[in-house]
Amino acid sequence: MRYRIAVEVMLKPAILDPAGQATEGILQQMGFSAEDVRIGKRITVETEADSAAAAEIAGRQMAEKLLANPVMEDFSVSVVAL
Amino acid sequence: MRYRIAVEVMLKPAILDPAGQATEGILQQMGFSAEDVRIGKRITVETEADSAAAAEIAGRQMAEKLLANPVMEDFSVSVVAL
Repeated sequence: MRYRIAVEVMLKPAILDPAGQATEGILQQMGFSAEDVRIGKRITVETEADSAAAAEIAGRQMAEKLLANPVMEDFSVSVVAL
Repeated sequence: MRYRIAVEVMLKPAILDPAGQATEGILQQMGFSAEDVRIGKRITVETEADSAAAAEIAGRQMAEKLLANPVMEDFSVSVVAL
């Protein structure tokens, strides 16, 4: 079956995010209530797998081996059937 | 109340994503089933709002005015209470 994996990769909370800080300043200047702005990545991958569980395992392996930097980033994986 | 807004910004399907294509090639070389890889952004913002609905409206405004490029990108907004 075909699934779409979404891998969300965010900087760990202890890691400074200068782009997020700049964006936060602009949002505040625009009048928004905005704090702790963080900018991460969202990677979507279509994949063939026997089950949603297998697709999620594949997604975690993709994140661990390529898509995320485990020293600086946390990730989460979600799967939807197509 | 305090909420965390998550704005997910992805290139529109018709827009070429060279970074996604490069990532797709590497995932395939690593042995993964991977097609139509797309790399987008996930921006999280903590905000003060009267309700989750108000926080979501603020998130949509942030996306429309600053975080997304409506010509090239689609976005979605989700909200969780903190």
